[in-house]
Amino acid sequence: MNKSNHLNESVIFPKGEKITNNYFIGTAWLEMLVSTDSTFNCPIGNVTFEPGARNNWHKHAGGQILLVTGGKGYYQEEGKPVQVLHEGDVVKILPDVKHWHGATPDSWFTHIAISTNVQMGGNEWLEPVTDDEYNNLK
Amino acid sequence: MNKSNHLNESVIFPKGEKITNNYFIGTAWLEMLVSTDSTFNCPIGNVTFEPGARNNWHKHAGGQILLVTGGKGYYQEEGKPVQVLHEGDVVKILPDVKHWHGATPDSWFTHIAISTNVQMGGNEWLEPVTDDEYNNLK
Repeated sequence: MNKSNHLNESVIFPKGEKITNNYFIGTAWLEMLVSTDSTFNCPIGNVTFEPGARNNWHKHAGGQILLVTGGKGYYQEEGKPVQVLHEGDVVKILPDVKHWHGATPDSWFTHIAISTNVQMGGNEWLEPVTDDEYNNLK
Repeated sequence: MNKSNHLNESVIFPKGEKITNNYFIGTAWLEMLVSTDSTFNCPIGNVTFEPGARNNWHKHAGGQILLVTGGKGYYQEEGKPVQVLHEGDVVKILPDVKHWHGATPDSWFTHIAISTNVQMGGNEWLEPVTDDEYNNLK
């Protein structure tokens, strides 16, 4: 089984359903492991991106933590160079920091997304990461 | 490579250092992926238990979520039957619920522990899970 097929079937946690909102380019899947509630204030999702897929620029009012479980991905904060992510990487996204994440052009990518302090508010979705931006990352 | 050796080397995230406090029976390892802070309020640790290792009965003031990444383990709440845990399982531990977790006698066990709402307080450590309790689980 090659690496792409393996990630296609999810890494440890279920791959879930295709994301159908308008905040992604390309195909990504989401399985909620913990839903949004007022007990834990900490929804957790397993997100899988096909090669080239990425979410729009966005912000989290209470922050978010990414635990990378497989593949190769990108994470970028506004005004900063892109970071290449691999299995075992941890990304701490501070509240209100504009950023995006997704797969590299040549690899699937899977991460667990842990949204923190959601009692402070949700996500603010912004503009897409255009093909021009994505194909000319520095 | 057999399953025990694989888990011995950690599953995805680093195994970290041996836990040296008095709240565990047997050997367990901890790698903090996100430390305790007032930004995320959500410390995250990767915990690996050798076969037979388990933590004491305890409570979390703000709750905790376990994401099982490998091996076979036990989770038990006071007054309830033990649950057997496998890769991909998610455990939602409500605030102030007395419980313990650890490996089965014949397997390593690894989980990610996500402590929630830590601004509400920390852990309350209680009595050990005795050999008599552990060897006679129902």
